[in-house]
Amino acid sequence: MKDRYIDVEDLIAARATPPGISALAIVRVAGPGCVDAVSRAFSRPERLRAAEGRTLVRGALLDIRDGRPVDDLVAAVFRAPESPTGQDQVDFMTHGSPAVVAAVVDALAALGFRKALPGEFSFRAFVAGKADLVESEAIDELSRARTAQAREAALRRLGGGPSAEIARIRTEVHELLAACEVLLDYPEDEVAGNLTSRLPAARGAVEALAKLSAGHAGARLRLEGARVAVAGRTNAGKSSLFNRFLREERSIVSDEHGTTRDWIEASVDLEGIPIVLHDTAGLRSTDDRTEAEGVRRSRLLLESADLILYVVDGTVGLAEEDGEFLAERPDALPVWNKADAPGCGPVPEGFHSVSALDGRGFQDLALAMVARLPGGSGSADGLAGERQAALVEAARASLSDAIAAIGAGEPLDLVSLDLRAASDSLGELTGETASPDVLETIFTRFCVGK
Amino acid sequence: MKDRYIDVEDLIAARATPPGISALAIVRVAGPGCVDAVSRAFSRPERLRAAEGRTLVRGALLDIRDGRPVDDLVAAVFRAPESPTGQDQVDFMTHGSPAVVAAVVDALAALGFRKALPGEFSFRAFVAGKADLVESEAIDELSRARTAQAREAALRRLGGGPSAEIARIRTEVHELLAACEVLLDYPEDEVAGNLTSRLPAARGAVEALAKLSAGHAGARLRLEGARVAVAGRTNAGKSSLFNRFLREERSIVSDEHGTTRDWIEASVDLEGIPIVLHDTAGLRSTDDRTEAEGVRRSRLLLESADLILYVVDGTVGLAEEDGEFLAERPDALPVWNKADAPGCGPVPEGFHSVSALDGRGFQDLALAMVARLPGGSGSADGLAGERQAALVEAARASLSDAIAAIGAGEPLDLVSLDLRAASDSLGELTGETASPDVLETIFTRFCVGK
Repeated sequence: MKDRYIDVEDLIAARATPPGISALAIVRVAGPGCVDAVSRAFSRPERLRAAEGRTLVRGALLDIRDGRPVDDLVAAVFRAPESPTGQDQVDFMTHGSPAVVAAVVDALAALGFRKALPGEFSFRAFVAGKADLVESEAIDELSRARTAQAREAALRRLGGGPSAEIARIRTEVHELLAACEVLLDYPEDEVAGNLTSRLPAARGAVEALAKLSAGHAGARLRLEGARVAVAGRTNAGKSSLFNRFLREERSIVSDEHGTTRDWIEASVDLEGIPIVLHDTAGLRSTDDRTEAEGVRRSRLLLESADLILYVVDGTVGLAEEDGEFLAERPDALPVWNKADAPGCGPVPEGFHSVSALDGRGFQDLALAMVARLPGGSGSADGLAGERQAALVEAARASLSDAIAAIGAGEPLDLVSLDLRAASDSLGELTGETASPDVLETIFTRFCVGK
Repeated sequence: MKDRYIDVEDLIAARATPPGISALAIVRVAGPGCVDAVSRAFSRPERLRAAEGRTLVRGALLDIRDGRPVDDLVAAVFRAPESPTGQDQVDFMTHGSPAVVAAVVDALAALGFRKALPGEFSFRAFVAGKADLVESEAIDELSRARTAQAREAALRRLGGGPSAEIARIRTEVHELLAACEVLLDYPEDEVAGNLTSRLPAARGAVEALAKLSAGHAGARLRLEGARVAVAGRTNAGKSSLFNRFLREERSIVSDEHGTTRDWIEASVDLEGIPIVLHDTAGLRSTDDRTEAEGVRRSRLLLESADLILYVVDGTVGLAEEDGEFLAERPDALPVWNKADAPGCGPVPEGFHSVSALDGRGFQDLALAMVARLPGGSGSADGLAGERQAALVEAARASLSDAIAAIGAGEPLDLVSLDLRAASDSLGELTGETASPDVLETIFTRFCVGK
């Protein structure tokens, strides 16, 4: 960890709620002795200084430079080690005004509180053993969860479900490693049986790691979501299909101030997967000058999409242009629209028959879309992070190699190296053996105040 | 008050922090028995149910429909009457994710909490006698304060400074009214002296009201701010002057995500007054088609501005166009720019000589601008609201009339009517005699969660 994070003794402060006007905001401070420090600038210093952990103290925060009140607020006092950060900590519940929050942070700076770095509170919780790395990352994942499934899965990761499983597997690796090393030290002894007797449990650990590894794609998809582009010829019914999605699926509230009102893009919850739908139709314009730009943007959308829905008007039938597109993009999901219309032709092979008008075929289309997305058939319950998945896979490969080497009677010092590699991967996963650089990379991804 | 606010016994819930992704959010609930109600869906029901006021309880909120955890959170418990609303109240400090907040509010709805109306928590505090109307309105004013002066003044109003003064004045009116009514009931008695002996104090009350009334414009200006348009011919140095303002004055952080980066508009703190500066220069374009639109928007800006700075290049001198503008808009503040340049001509009468380049004359210009704005010479300390100012002025007029009528020996029943009118105005000001409609109008201006 680079210098800047090293000093967990610093007094730090940061706004922990979003910016903007509201009823309340929270400014969080932490660090050894922080309650005493803020008491110096509090209207009821003795009361705050003497406050027990997990109590609320109402009063005014003052600016020590001139003694003027900055805000009337409520101080939520936490005492080490029973606090979110494991340190003495105060969450000031202030009035929800940007000017008030700025003035509170400024008054705290005058008391010696420096502005907290992104993720610095979480880092302190990690250092204090309040959360391992998988749990710490789940805090960030929880913030980013856009569907109920993603939120519940992040909450389970936060609650330590995968962490306990990983700890169990790592213990298994350590047992096998210990048996190896005893045998290395005392090759003549009758302890060889210890090693082979551990092999079934070690194979179970490989299976558990393979399961964790396989669960990643599903968890990642539920957390990060996917982009789906709706393409097709003019009048194929792209916009109607788009609107039908908005009616049938639960739309995602990314921000209560209003998700996009632009019909070109919308977010929906498709079986627990946060999907951003793009209607490429909206990009065309009758204006000659903007036509080229529209086509360029449509192409970009199609290239960046995780899935393309290609819509054909079933009452018109396949045109040459449709065939060309589908030949060029065999990964697109072809949709035969206007199934409600009397003149709708027979559904070509591989097409999904739907009616954007009355919604028929729509549920089947949604399931087909989910099945096409990487991880779609999985659940939200695995490890969502790329870093985590890579380490699980590395641990699985190393442990698997070690078991194979034992079976093949290879030298135990080589086996031991594989087992150490597996242990290191798992240790990096939970943070026990993660390097400062890795920790910094992880925690600086968090927002300030977290 | 219309039906919807009437039931202060309802269990209500609302997000109290701004929307968006962050470390924490607050969802506030209030109402008699609300702690018991939320305990039904808490992972540690007995602990929460037994929580004393002003304590924090950590646990998981569950969805009672399926028992699944919604979030790990900290419940800040307040007990009636020692709570912000005067009722049992819980501020849930949740993870700061829109999906989490939405799920928490949804889980609370399943427990029978309806979504709080705008200002409903503040209304309950008012009903419980925690704050009078002037103090309640100050909560909203505090949120909207953009400069330190405005924030401190709102904090003083919130702390009850003006409220105490108004209560003192109203008591004075009641004393005078009582003396009048004794004299009406016992006209033969020797109590007439009571009435005249109260007159000096009553005159003092009129003066105090006049002072409150006079303080309004200054307070309003510091809270609401003003719009200043920078106009002038091409190359007069409008943009340089604009940029100099941004360098010299403290720019206002209206939102940490970034105030406008558009150089056409910027917010600065000019001696405690939040000023939105508009550079009309930016609206012109070389494109013929947008020229007309630019001129139209410039005109609108000039019409809606509270003050116009009209910039003339001192090295070029006054042109016919300048004279025409200043004749048409004699309220504009004329600025003689480029005072740094050797070729700058003598400053015409009424012009402020400045250099946008080196900043000379700038401080004088800022003071001249403040002096030109309505209320600019006042302080931030009066009552900022229009409603409040109108009621203070009405009370002053009524009380003044009553004193004049007493002096002129007019019938005491007429004097008594004036005094009652003064009392009613003051009662409406603090909310003691405000009608339900007035209360509704005031509290619905607040945001939800407040």
